[in-house]
Amino acid sequence: MNARKVAVLGATGVVGQRFLRLLDGHPWFRVAEVVASDTRRGKPYGEAVQWLDRGDPQDAVRDLELKGPDDDLDADLVFSALPSGTAGPLERSLAARGFAVFTNAADLRMEEDVPIVVPEVNPEHLSLAEDQRVRNAGGGFVVANGNCTAILLSLALKPLRDRFGLRACHVVTLQALSGAGYPGVPGLDALGNVLPYIPQEEGKVESEPQKILGTAQEGRIVRASFPLSATCMRVPVLEGHTEAVTVRLEEEASADEIRETLRAFRGRPQALGLPSAPRAPLVYRDEADRPQPRRDGPEGGGMTVAVGRLRPDPILGWKFVVAGSNTVRGAAGGSILTAELALASGLLS
Amino acid sequence: MNARKVAVLGATGVVGQRFLRLLDGHPWFRVAEVVASDTRRGKPYGEAVQWLDRGDPQDAVRDLELKGPDDDLDADLVFSALPSGTAGPLERSLAARGFAVFTNAADLRMEEDVPIVVPEVNPEHLSLAEDQRVRNAGGGFVVANGNCTAILLSLALKPLRDRFGLRACHVVTLQALSGAGYPGVPGLDALGNVLPYIPQEEGKVESEPQKILGTAQEGRIVRASFPLSATCMRVPVLEGHTEAVTVRLEEEASADEIRETLRAFRGRPQALGLPSAPRAPLVYRDEADRPQPRRDGPEGGGMTVAVGRLRPDPILGWKFVVAGSNTVRGAAGGSILTAELALASGLLS
Amino acid sequence: MNARKVAVLGATGVVGQRFLRLLDGHPWFRVAEVVASDTRRGKPYGEAVQWLDRGDPQDAVRDLELKGPDDDLDADLVFSALPSGTAGPLERSLAARGFAVFTNAADLRMEEDVPIVVPEVNPEHLSLAEDQRVRNAGGGFVVANGNCTAILLSLALKPLRDRFGLRACHVVTLQALSGAGYPGVPGLDALGNVLPYIPQEEGKVESEPQKILGTAQEGRIVRASFPLSATCMRVPVLEGHTEAVTVRLEEEASADEIRETLRAFRGRPQALGLPSAPRAPLVYRDEADRPQPRRDGPEGGGMTVAVGRLRPDPILGWKFVVAGSNTVRGAAGGSILTAELALASGLLS
Amino acid sequence: MNARKVAVLGATGVVGQRFLRLLDGHPWFRVAEVVASDTRRGKPYGEAVQWLDRGDPQDAVRDLELKGPDDDLDADLVFSALPSGTAGPLERSLAARGFAVFTNAADLRMEEDVPIVVPEVNPEHLSLAEDQRVRNAGGGFVVANGNCTAILLSLALKPLRDRFGLRACHVVTLQALSGAGYPGVPGLDALGNVLPYIPQEEGKVESEPQKILGTAQEGRIVRASFPLSATCMRVPVLEGHTEAVTVRLEEEASADEIRETLRAFRGRPQALGLPSAPRAPLVYRDEADRPQPRRDGPEGGGMTVAVGRLRPDPILGWKFVVAGSNTVRGAAGGSILTAELALASGLLS
Repeated sequence: MNARKVAVLGATGVVGQRFLRLLDGHPWFRVAEVVASDTRRGKPYGEAVQWLDRGDPQDAVRDLELKGPDDDLDADLVFSALPSGTAGPLERSLAARGFAVFTNAADLRMEEDVPIVVPEVNPEHLSLAEDQRVRNAGGGFVVANGNCTAILLSLALKPLRDRFGLRACHVVTLQALSGAGYPGVPGLDALGNVLPYIPQEEGKVESEPQKILGTAQEGRIVRASFPLSATCMRVPVLEGHTEAVTVRLEEEASADEIRETLRAFRGRPQALGLPSAPRAPLVYRDEADRPQPRRDGPEGGGMTVAVGRLRPDPILGWKFVVAGSNTVRGAAGGSILTAELALASGLLS
Repeated sequence: MNARKVAVLGATGVVGQRFLRLLDGHPWFRVAEVVASDTRRGKPYGEAVQWLDRGDPQDAVRDLELKGPDDDLDADLVFSALPSGTAGPLERSLAARGFAVFTNAADLRMEEDVPIVVPEVNPEHLSLAEDQRVRNAGGGFVVANGNCTAILLSLALKPLRDRFGLRACHVVTLQALSGAGYPGVPGLDALGNVLPYIPQEEGKVESEPQKILGTAQEGRIVRASFPLSATCMRVPVLEGHTEAVTVRLEEEASADEIRETLRAFRGRPQALGLPSAPRAPLVYRDEADRPQPRRDGPEGGGMTVAVGRLRPDPILGWKFVVAGSNTVRGAAGGSILTAELALASGLLS
Repeated sequence: MNARKVAVLGATGVVGQRFLRLLDGHPWFRVAEVVASDTRRGKPYGEAVQWLDRGDPQDAVRDLELKGPDDDLDADLVFSALPSGTAGPLERSLAARGFAVFTNAADLRMEEDVPIVVPEVNPEHLSLAEDQRVRNAGGGFVVANGNCTAILLSLALKPLRDRFGLRACHVVTLQALSGAGYPGVPGLDALGNVLPYIPQEEGKVESEPQKILGTAQEGRIVRASFPLSATCMRVPVLEGHTEAVTVRLEEEASADEIRETLRAFRGRPQALGLPSAPRAPLVYRDEADRPQPRRDGPEGGGMTVAVGRLRPDPILGWKFVVAGSNTVRGAAGGSILTAELALASGLLS
Repeated sequence: MNARKVAVLGATGVVGQRFLRLLDGHPWFRVAEVVASDTRRGKPYGEAVQWLDRGDPQDAVRDLELKGPDDDLDADLVFSALPSGTAGPLERSLAARGFAVFTNAADLRMEEDVPIVVPEVNPEHLSLAEDQRVRNAGGGFVVANGNCTAILLSLALKPLRDRFGLRACHVVTLQALSGAGYPGVPGLDALGNVLPYIPQEEGKVESEPQKILGTAQEGRIVRASFPLSATCMRVPVLEGHTEAVTVRLEEEASADEIRETLRAFRGRPQALGLPSAPRAPLVYRDEADRPQPRRDGPEGGGMTVAVGRLRPDPILGWKFVVAGSNTVRGAAGGSILTAELALASGLLS
């Protein structure tokens, strides 16, 4: 199979840079176009970008000329790392032009025809993309990935809900600075401090998991109906979100059963052997003081979510801690895995 | 009134140093004795201590000669900043020798005859100290203050429970490094990371508030019976704990009523005008991104606890965020305020 | 003496906020006017400001209505915390209108008629303000304080130069985030990192000390002529600059003589007992691992500079480490002390 | 070629863990033995270690049984990550038993018969190991790598000294926490602070580079004689040292010539294509705000040292900034590259 040509929108931002890093040497995808706002149009990527990751952008990308959002794109599919607000209209328009768009932006996530796909959790939601293809003259579509926190949480909840049922979920998050983009949180606010509020975050975390864990029926998603409470905080961590999760399950479960269920969880990406699929989407750590975002976030190349500290909860039943990479599994890596799933499912032919 | 002579036990540790700082210039108490382990006995305090706070120890203390735990103490009362394990037996023995001991250590907190006093919350629990005085030949007694997290939480829960009743409380804490003592958490673990576990902390936070909010009856405390769930984490903050609190109240309450109740809260220290009493034990902050430990921890000299972000919770009813100083209100300052209350109540005569 | 009415320009920025904090309860000065850019004009200060310091602005200032830069000001003197670029023209115009302006901005520092005053170092440079008064119809003038790093360095160099002569000085600085203003350095750049460059900083540090240590002659400053090399870096510290200083002295000196010289240093503010004058402008710390910015920056209320680690240098002769508060001694506190000196010297009558 | 069997001494410490990580999948070396203090002897490595790096130790090592220092070792060569003090005698004894020992410890570095090898700088110093082989009955020897800071500095100085001559060097370092081992620097000291002192560090940095840059003559090293001044500080960075370097060169040089000289530098590891050799030992970065330890430390897998900010220095002539990985190039990676060089040079046959 020849590598598919890929365009990355919002290529100069934090998430865009992560897309480029993860696509470097990808066996199925090759970055052919980098797109940014019109002000940088025409410049070589390597000159226009303020590279925030370690080292430098890879050679193959450095010399690509930045295109504007309305330019012709020589690409088979599009990854969007656009900021909220500008993302939605542009992504719709690209779909109308026939592109398969995999977006990390929040704008269209809750639109009825757009699925939020976490490949191990709800691969069948890609059927909504099929429906879009039919409606869009050019056969384009938009598939979203979720909010970073919602993705990590959905992965941990999925096997528990499947096996024991899920009545309620309460989560308090300790989120990394990289989730806020660049320049993002000022150092004077972040250093040695906790910011107990992230604009618009709790609303996303309290609504996206129910859609992700919902059922695709007649071209739309019937949402899972459990109540979900989120408190989202920013902590002085560079990369990796931590979530203190409390759940009420429908059925009785022992700690051993829960741990076993989390450890045994595999999804379609593992079955298909997709290039970005980790060996397991979840690991359960037995150490008393894990998972930690700095040490467990990079697990599985950032695609594995770590769970630990399972204990009975006197109010809701069970509580545990989740940590994972917000920029890989929770953003660029999640979109890429979804695109791999779409390609393997015949959606990109 | 002449200043009472005070001995500080564990004077060279993190909490001991905070005691000394707070007692510097205190109108009622004067540091007359500093006590440490036998290995440092006989040295001038200023030479023996590795001073961790800013600047230097105050002049009046620098030249005091360190005593050992079994030495005679020329003191009217004792503040204990001893580490757990050694604290309990020594404090009992000092009480038997006739000393009024105000301890920050955990060892005796859950003993039936020892009250955990948070002066604005349960000043009437000092009656257990009266009972101890009767039993101890020399008229000594031990009064504990609570775990730092439990103190801050109890202060926030007290007015809500009094007005609306409290059915359940769920808390996730983001605790500062200073709570772990010195050397405490290695920099390699702390920097840019979250440690999702603090040894023995959750047990304290899940049991002390019910005792603090309990009722003194016939020489013992009948504990409040609401379920309390705690998840305690360490974050790279120097000073100031943050708590994400969710509560189920017994009665209906509006957001305005809750805020008003928190803001109106005053206790006996305010009524008595005790030297270390802040104007109000709680402040409610209306800003979306407050309270923050670094900015709100120092409120009221570290004796005021800040609350904010009150929102409905889809599972338990209400949620909010608490931040306060773990070393002042949650440790040394709390003990000092309790001693002031005891003195003003005639317990030290 | 009645308190002089003071206007603070740039009152909503990081340095402006520090001015307000330091002027709270000042015995000689009372904040009567707060001035910001026109966009915030007319709003109460407490509403317009994003308060970055702990707690809240003091009550007396919270309700003051923000004025614009061209409004009439009911003030006896002006403190300027304006950003570079806008500061210079506005300060000149205020001086022309008759105001005594004490500025923290860099714009006019190297102007021939404007002195950079560090009160313990060069109080006699205030004579240039006298000259300005004569020239300005209204009797106004501008006095600058130096760059934060330059102020701390000049204080450490002054007594050494006076006693031993100074042939050359090499300094590498580790500067705090608060020096960059707000929002300043992004958290993603600052956390767990060193930024080896601060725009325009090295130029200031390599030129201002020679002016500060120069000689006032015939209405201008003849600069000291020693070569000075500066490398300025940003480190993840909130407050307090550290400087690794190497010097070549003209005369032989022993370590004891140097330490003694630093410790004995006093200036006119100490002689006059100015309200903001610390007991000593310098302290020398004997501990191997001091001075540290977090622990020694607050020394003397932030007005004392700490020196330590004096050792022979195999190339230039001597090296030592300096740490001090960049926002107090290095900014707002320095300007206030200069204004106190000016008042005590009869310049504000 | 079959992979050589390797023993790692001090395998449970910070540097030992880094050795294991870097040796995972190494084409020439296979970890066959892990050695720790006697207290852990007999336990599987995976149980005995408190793994500090991300994720987990590699499978191949997890199940190895820890040996004690006096046990028989089935190994062709030994990497030592022992702490100072215990390292020296044990390494001498292993050499006497016939082992080729590549050590990261400081104990033997300044011994006359032990070379400090930085493979791109002084590969010819391996001749001292040849001499040791002759003397040791079993043909064993000890080769040291330098102090982390000294290694990075020597790499930057080598091409400049070769081309322009070096009269003097002054360096101020900002060193990462990982250099202090584990538990190392307490979080309470490190967070938001600078520690201006690292025990015994300056002595090493002021003496090792002259040996590294010296000349092997008649079985010993004649040291380079330029004066070197070091001030070593600890900053809140996890990994990656930064060095502010000032040099006096013997000959005139232009900035372009210096940059070109740094960029063109290659050594024997590059010529031989050793497995751990980076493409170039140095990179020069043109951005105003680079190199940064967090972003440039990982360059070349941690084996490339980044240089930037070249500017004239008014006292010594030139100044620049160096950043590199203290745990890879400055420790374990440096030793491994030296062992590769020794193998390629026939020293291990």
